[in-house]
Amino acid sequence: MPKPLKLALAQMNPHVGAIEKNAAKIIDYIHKAKARGADLVVFPELAITGYPPEDLVLKPQFIKDNLSVLNEIAKAAKDIAVYVGFVDAKGDNIYNAGAFINNGKIVEIYHKNNLPNYKVFDEKRYFTSGTKTSVVTLKGTKIGLGICEDIWVDANPYMKEAKAGAKLMLVINASPYHVGKIYEREKVLSKRAKATKAHIIYVNMVGGQDELVFDGGSFVVNSKGKLVASAPQFKEDLLVVDGKGNICRKPEEMEEIYSAIKMGLKDYVDKNGFTDVLVGLSGGIDSALTLTIAADTLGNKRVHPIYMPSQYSARQSIEDSKRVSNNLGTSLEIIPIKDIFSDYLKDLEACFKGAKPNIAEENLQARIRGNLLMALSNKFGWLVISTGNKSETSTGYCTLYGDMVGGFNVLKDVPKTLVYKLVEWRNRQEKVIPMSIINRPPTAELKPNQKDRDTLPPYDVLDKVIKAYVEDNKSLKEIVKLGINAKTAKKMLSMIDRAEYKRRQSPPGPRITERAFGKDWRLPITNGYISR
Amino acid sequence: MPKPLKLALAQMNPHVGAIEKNAAKIIDYIHKAKARGADLVVFPELAITGYPPEDLVLKPQFIKDNLSVLNEIAKAAKDIAVYVGFVDAKGDNIYNAGAFINNGKIVEIYHKNNLPNYKVFDEKRYFTSGTKTSVVTLKGTKIGLGICEDIWVDANPYMKEAKAGAKLMLVINASPYHVGKIYEREKVLSKRAKATKAHIIYVNMVGGQDELVFDGGSFVVNSKGKLVASAPQFKEDLLVVDGKGNICRKPEEMEEIYSAIKMGLKDYVDKNGFTDVLVGLSGGIDSALTLTIAADTLGNKRVHPIYMPSQYSARQSIEDSKRVSNNLGTSLEIIPIKDIFSDYLKDLEACFKGAKPNIAEENLQARIRGNLLMALSNKFGWLVISTGNKSETSTGYCTLYGDMVGGFNVLKDVPKTLVYKLVEWRNRQEKVIPMSIINRPPTAELKPNQKDRDTLPPYDVLDKVIKAYVEDNKSLKEIVKLGINAKTAKKMLSMIDRAEYKRRQSPPGPRITERAFGKDWRLPITNGYISR
Repeated sequence: MPKPLKLALAQMNPHVGAIEKNAAKIIDYIHKAKARGADLVVFPELAITGYPPEDLVLKPQFIKDNLSVLNEIAKAAKDIAVYVGFVDAKGDNIYNAGAFINNGKIVEIYHKNNLPNYKVFDEKRYFTSGTKTSVVTLKGTKIGLGICEDIWVDANPYMKEAKAGAKLMLVINASPYHVGKIYEREKVLSKRAKATKAHIIYVNMVGGQDELVFDGGSFVVNSKGKLVASAPQFKEDLLVVDGKGNICRKPEEMEEIYSAIKMGLKDYVDKNGFTDVLVGLSGGIDSALTLTIAADTLGNKRVHPIYMPSQYSARQSIEDSKRVSNNLGTSLEIIPIKDIFSDYLKDLEACFKGAKPNIAEENLQARIRGNLLMALSNKFGWLVISTGNKSETSTGYCTLYGDMVGGFNVLKDVPKTLVYKLVEWRNRQEKVIPMSIINRPPTAELKPNQKDRDTLPPYDVLDKVIKAYVEDNKSLKEIVKLGINAKTAKKMLSMIDRAEYKRRQSPPGPRITERAFGKDWRLPITNGYISR
Repeated sequence: MPKPLKLALAQMNPHVGAIEKNAAKIIDYIHKAKARGADLVVFPELAITGYPPEDLVLKPQFIKDNLSVLNEIAKAAKDIAVYVGFVDAKGDNIYNAGAFINNGKIVEIYHKNNLPNYKVFDEKRYFTSGTKTSVVTLKGTKIGLGICEDIWVDANPYMKEAKAGAKLMLVINASPYHVGKIYEREKVLSKRAKATKAHIIYVNMVGGQDELVFDGGSFVVNSKGKLVASAPQFKEDLLVVDGKGNICRKPEEMEEIYSAIKMGLKDYVDKNGFTDVLVGLSGGIDSALTLTIAADTLGNKRVHPIYMPSQYSARQSIEDSKRVSNNLGTSLEIIPIKDIFSDYLKDLEACFKGAKPNIAEENLQARIRGNLLMALSNKFGWLVISTGNKSETSTGYCTLYGDMVGGFNVLKDVPKTLVYKLVEWRNRQEKVIPMSIINRPPTAELKPNQKDRDTLPPYDVLDKVIKAYVEDNKSLKEIVKLGINAKTAKKMLSMIDRAEYKRRQSPPGPRITERAFGKDWRLPITNGYISR
């Protein structure tokens, strides 16, 4: 670290759109950083607006409002320097920008040079690329400015800034989480530090925003590329660095994923102003894990499990539901659906005449449960958390308006095989999910003796197909080469393609893999392509 | 028209992803054009893949498949020239491209220079911009190539091509419909023709693709900027031009919108392989118009109206539902929901204890209807068409998993005031929607004496707010300046913002305005911004 400077990394959780609230938080961190003797405090990318502000940026008044709070922040930054992300505008051009403020004045504005427009990113929809680099001087140290994507490309502005004498680089980020992303970041930053021969401050956003989770884990590498300090993941932090700092322990993989999902849920619930959540229990592993995550995130008093048995529900289902609910200290409500189901069938009798029982009767049960959950949601203002996993969402092995109802789907990006691993990890901390749930063959219980295996291949096979097709854009031929039976693979790809209409109407859930259903999955519903 | 050339404009309706099917259609048009003596036949942008192919383009095998059918098409083009859109790839770069084929050989490949990445377009997500212009010679005439957006920008490749001697310009397009878009196209093209002093052939795609409608209306302007020939909107056409051609009558505004919605519905139903559709009738104007559009589009035999009365349904509702169904020659099914509703309330009694009646009981009725529609859908494989309008979708005055259920929502982008205008236009052709439906004050009939006016301002006021806020990104202050009461405006904007979670789970519907909910509306659900 250039010796004379004491640096603060404000790993902040903004609320998208809540400009004044974000500004107040920024000003509070500026005061805290000053109190701890920092010369400079650095905030995440677009800290003022939150990330991604999406089409809010197309509202001219929104940009004006963000500029006016930037000026308030500048005024509040007496006797300290600040680098903070905001939305800049010049004429018709809008920029993803960073303001460098010193002692109450904005002394430099940097416009992000490299705008990501792939995967979950749409920055070229909104922003114009900056074309200039920025080097500022603070207490004799030359500092290079940049934003997020700028550090990922080989021809990056920091190289030019290094040539202009910068010895300290500031990278402000809204870098979304996926499993192990933090290791990728540290690797790239280490390389850049060596290339620029500069110390680099990497400040990441933290918090959940709809489907995205920002995991924080801000850090500092020295000019040799060595990690010298880091902040924790999944919570706000003010890391103050003077020469060397603290390096945070990184969680093991299952803990990392579990924490990411919790943060996604917590911020969806809290930022949207919900007090309580509802979870429909089935006796299966997905709803048991969902309830556990909800209780771990919000506390057992804010979480309301409901069990809704039909004539096809096994005794084990109610017992296991009671057990997991008890273990978590939640209070289970039970509403049988048998009578309502009979009434529907009676009223549909004339229309159904002559037709054989099929998926209609099965889905009806799931939809009665959906209605009951939504009735409770509407009655008390509670959010329904849906319980489907990525294997189901992929293949459409789930009922639209049935088990898919809800405002947030915590396991949306968690394949079934990972559900088991997360349960195993969670049970290692404290036994909450009964072994009987874990050991039972998955079933939808919508007709007698139904098993997932009647419709789907074993989940380890299915999840391999999903990884290859959904995350890696592999073709049928390539998937068969991975050792998957051709007929199985073909059927699965067709199921995945045909379920697009369901996914379009599904609630958001936290992204934890490299490709989740949502912003990074833009497939047409009307789609005649058959993979070969 | 440069005299020696006879030109064919193949206004084609491709099926996104169905590469072989599209290739067969292209080859068929090539043969037809040749039979009519054309020297050159021109196809729309990305005619081989359909538009927009979205993330299909991220599948390497998909691009290979499209390149292999391009070669088949080239081989089939004996003794004729063809300009056709496809996806090109060079190394890691993917291009939105046009192939100029002459007598069985690809003689030139043009890469789209200008990639739209705003509104419904995401082309920078996929494609690299071409940097070269292309001029080819056919029977002594120099021809300039380009694609869609290329003609809309002032610094366009056609100017360079004109300097290189091109006297005829080919513009291939997938230009999505909105009201009056065809006039904008003709105006811009006329300007470009004058600037380049060249004749311009503008070939547009036709057909529905999820939320987008491509309206065709392909045309030719001469080098003085005068419209000399045009194809009809909303259907496939092969326009052959030799010097002068035919100019098609343009439909009046309501006919244009009605035709756009019909095409959107028809292609969603047919391309997705549905035989029949279901429409829930309420006795109100939205469901009456929806049924009429469905019957006009698919014929009355393929359309099944269902009326599902509760204790709050007025006698007028059943009578009006019967009347409109009779007028259209459809067969109405009636399923009362009273018993099912009582059963739900009985089963929820314990949980609801002590709570006052609220939206929960209202939504429950809408959701019972949704379940019944979906049960019929699942039983017979029929598509549910939902009946909500844009005023409802905007304000959230609709029930998620209730009246919002369905695979396609024909009035999704039609504000209530426009619903009345469309009904008036349709009734002018032939009286199908009873005056009693038109004159009745709108009601959801989910509690005694309920009227839309209890919750919403008059629809002419509301629709003004929606236009300003949703289409034009206006602020609260600006909306008040339009003459809207400040308290009303504030309440409406808040309703619009808060309904985002519902819209995210809504089915697609045809875009007819400049900004519809869908690809061109990317607002966060978790959103703390309050417009001022």
